[in-house]
Amino acid sequence: MIKCVEFLRTLFYPRTIAVIGAHIDPTRLGFTIVDTVIKFGYDGRIYLINPKYVGKNLFGHKFYASISDVPDEVDAAIILIGAKKVLEALDECVKKNVKSAIIFTSGFSEVSEEYGRAVEEEIKRISDKSGMVIVGPNCLGIFSAPARICTFPEAELKYEKAGKISAIFQSGSLLASFQILSSFRGFYLNKGVSTGNEAATTLTDFLEYFIEDPETHVIAMYIEQVREGRRFIDLCKSTKKPLVALKVGRSEAGKLAAKSHTAALAGSIEVWNSVCKQVGIIQAKTFFQLYDYAMALASPKRPRGNRVGIITSPGGPSVIAADICGELGLSIPRLSRESVENLSKVLPPFASLANPVDMTASALEDLDVYRSVIDIVASDSNVDMILVIAPLTRQLKIAEIIAELSEEISKPIVVSWTSVAYSEELRKAIKVLGEKMVPNYFMPERAVEALSVMLSQSLIEQKKSLR
Amino acid sequence: MIKCVEFLRTLFYPRTIAVIGAHIDPTRLGFTIVDTVIKFGYDGRIYLINPKYVGKNLFGHKFYASISDVPDEVDAAIILIGAKKVLEALDECVKKNVKSAIIFTSGFSEVSEEYGRAVEEEIKRISDKSGMVIVGPNCLGIFSAPARICTFPEAELKYEKAGKISAIFQSGSLLASFQILSSFRGFYLNKGVSTGNEAATTLTDFLEYFIEDPETHVIAMYIEQVREGRRFIDLCKSTKKPLVALKVGRSEAGKLAAKSHTAALAGSIEVWNSVCKQVGIIQAKTFFQLYDYAMALASPKRPRGNRVGIITSPGGPSVIAADICGELGLSIPRLSRESVENLSKVLPPFASLANPVDMTASALEDLDVYRSVIDIVASDSNVDMILVIAPLTRQLKIAEIIAELSEEISKPIVVSWTSVAYSEELRKAIKVLGEKMVPNYFMPERAVEALSVMLSQSLIEQKKSLR
Repeated sequence: MIKCVEFLRTLFYPRTIAVIGAHIDPTRLGFTIVDTVIKFGYDGRIYLINPKYVGKNLFGHKFYASISDVPDEVDAAIILIGAKKVLEALDECVKKNVKSAIIFTSGFSEVSEEYGRAVEEEIKRISDKSGMVIVGPNCLGIFSAPARICTFPEAELKYEKAGKISAIFQSGSLLASFQILSSFRGFYLNKGVSTGNEAATTLTDFLEYFIEDPETHVIAMYIEQVREGRRFIDLCKSTKKPLVALKVGRSEAGKLAAKSHTAALAGSIEVWNSVCKQVGIIQAKTFFQLYDYAMALASPKRPRGNRVGIITSPGGPSVIAADICGELGLSIPRLSRESVENLSKVLPPFASLANPVDMTASALEDLDVYRSVIDIVASDSNVDMILVIAPLTRQLKIAEIIAELSEEISKPIVVSWTSVAYSEELRKAIKVLGEKMVPNYFMPERAVEALSVMLSQSLIEQKKSLR
Repeated sequence: MIKCVEFLRTLFYPRTIAVIGAHIDPTRLGFTIVDTVIKFGYDGRIYLINPKYVGKNLFGHKFYASISDVPDEVDAAIILIGAKKVLEALDECVKKNVKSAIIFTSGFSEVSEEYGRAVEEEIKRISDKSGMVIVGPNCLGIFSAPARICTFPEAELKYEKAGKISAIFQSGSLLASFQILSSFRGFYLNKGVSTGNEAATTLTDFLEYFIEDPETHVIAMYIEQVREGRRFIDLCKSTKKPLVALKVGRSEAGKLAAKSHTAALAGSIEVWNSVCKQVGIIQAKTFFQLYDYAMALASPKRPRGNRVGIITSPGGPSVIAADICGELGLSIPRLSRESVENLSKVLPPFASLANPVDMTASALEDLDVYRSVIDIVASDSNVDMILVIAPLTRQLKIAEIIAELSEEISKPIVVSWTSVAYSEELRKAIKVLGEKMVPNYFMPERAVEALSVMLSQSLIEQKKSLR
């Protein structure tokens, strides 16, 4: 168990990395990882280790026979060699005084209980004794936007910006999907780690790190097993940062699958549910919810009550929105007499001035109507948060109006697209809203869930303030 | 109430259409609709009605002062004029012996109970007396892939092919979203109708039509209110075609919103739930589920039991899949000894030969492994249906293998992408699977739901066979 936040820092901000098992064959992981790290824009120093290729170069980086030959300090070693050579490589890393090691290699306790456990105990012993951070084995490494490093073989490699969400995943492939999703949805990741079998460094260690990390505003977790329950609970209690988790092993079939994936013992879901309630973890039930909720919570705004003002131009989606508000315990209040009067001045006679405010398609002819209507609804003291349902057209212009207004309005605003696929225009609109931290979703069903999650987090934060 | 299936046919296969209220100003709906109809590829004859533009042309189509001036029979009239002129226009249509009229105009019972109801009763009287089909008012019209006609102003206008799903929606904008979604997801619509306030023609009428229609294999419905309960129930009971519905008005807030949208009285959700159970309607809770389930049911394959064989290369997604199988009552059986032996011959030693079969990333090096593994699992007598979880790369090639295999395998196969956005390659892969009716989803959580829905439909069909 490594508690030293300073030490984990070298993992996310390495000035030098060594790739043990780097390869010149483009079909091999030892090539892909080097390629990935470079494409994502890492600008620290890179050393490649493979005795077979001494004297050769890959993308201008030299090969060395052993890590001990590297003429530099090494902050992070990425280990990609066969399972049987891993311990030896770690010993060499310790001798070289390497600060952290990430073991990608699989074939340990997830495959063979006896042999794998023994090796993993030895990995832990090496880490404890030397103080070297060791991540994995059976993992896909790390992501750190501030340090421009990404080791996920299939990530989105076009760097956009550092976001506010950090992710701890007990599945590398799901983390890669999560990172790709974040780049499409415009609320970016700050850091991420695939923890694998957690021989020496656990989800809980990273939780401590991200709680301390000033660049992390929301912590998203994919969990098969929490290995240090007591410490995990205490850490969760200690922070007001939003915590959102997708926990698998809810069914027996899931528990079995988790065991063969990362040797996880998923534990009782009833216990987990009560822990979440007690320590203030927002639970996602699906992968997409995990991201949707993290996006909602990355917005710094919190509602002060459960009353939603809905503004729409298409009719059907607002019915879905209202329905789900009702199911999730959000109310759709009457607007004040003043608001209705003000609305009547800017909307056509056949528009609905009740809540949901249905501007009808005519609002698309003069988008300033959007601005006025949002402003009126947001100013209404009966309303705690605002849902804007955007139509199928003119999304970019509408996004620009909302992004601008969101800076003046202190109440949370969430946008629902009725679009269902990424057109060029919609992708731009999503970026515009992401820039101003306005959460936005496909279809109102997901947007209303986001509002509900914002309210839950608001209540969690109030409760934690009282302690 | 129009029961004549032959008569509704002219609506979906019009040889001539007239647009009453056609316009030359591109910002007006009277322009957009004409533009939409032409862009989608309608090749029947088009007549434009607007006394202001007599003598002018739009896209080469002539304007007439009145429908009575049109020198041709008119199968379908699209009415876009102001509310107060609608009855007059209908009377003219009747005189002209127009077979069907679609009233887009809004501002009836959804806005004004008394005035609106009165006009709608008159609309019904006109329809009953003349036999002219009247759709709407307050709707967005129809979609018919076989006749290449689409009147949704914001639809996906690139025509691909006629699919097997037909849709009845009490919201035009949601239907447009549904049609766009279907074009992205590769299981296309056959026909669709936005029923609006249903003055003369109801959801139940269209249900009857689609039950009879040989080109419709699945009927998807967005429902605010069922206006002819008894007949609706009898029709649902009478068919083995899959019926999937998203019903709003589950909460009080949703009921109120539905009322101001299409003047719907949503009724009791408990009654609705028991009707669904009784008559065999698969219920969706969200917009995306409505499409996901329609896709699953468009596949002609049905499982004979609840046992799922899961084949994956990424680990985490298979844990999610297993977990949700457990939650939805699907089992993940042990594979037969023979299967395990056969798998051991084609998979590397560190692969998991249990179910889920985790081929590990090495399977990507030789995609023939995919073919062998799917074949082995599908042949196992312990397995009723197959879930293949595709990795983040090589999706097209994998889709081609699965599409080919799906023709030889009688058990349902469903694919889960771990991708979360539409890359060029993924869009191609989706089309390849759609072509062979292999349902495919983003992330296993949705794919497992699809398997569960296929099983439910299988049980519904068995039950209906016994009657």
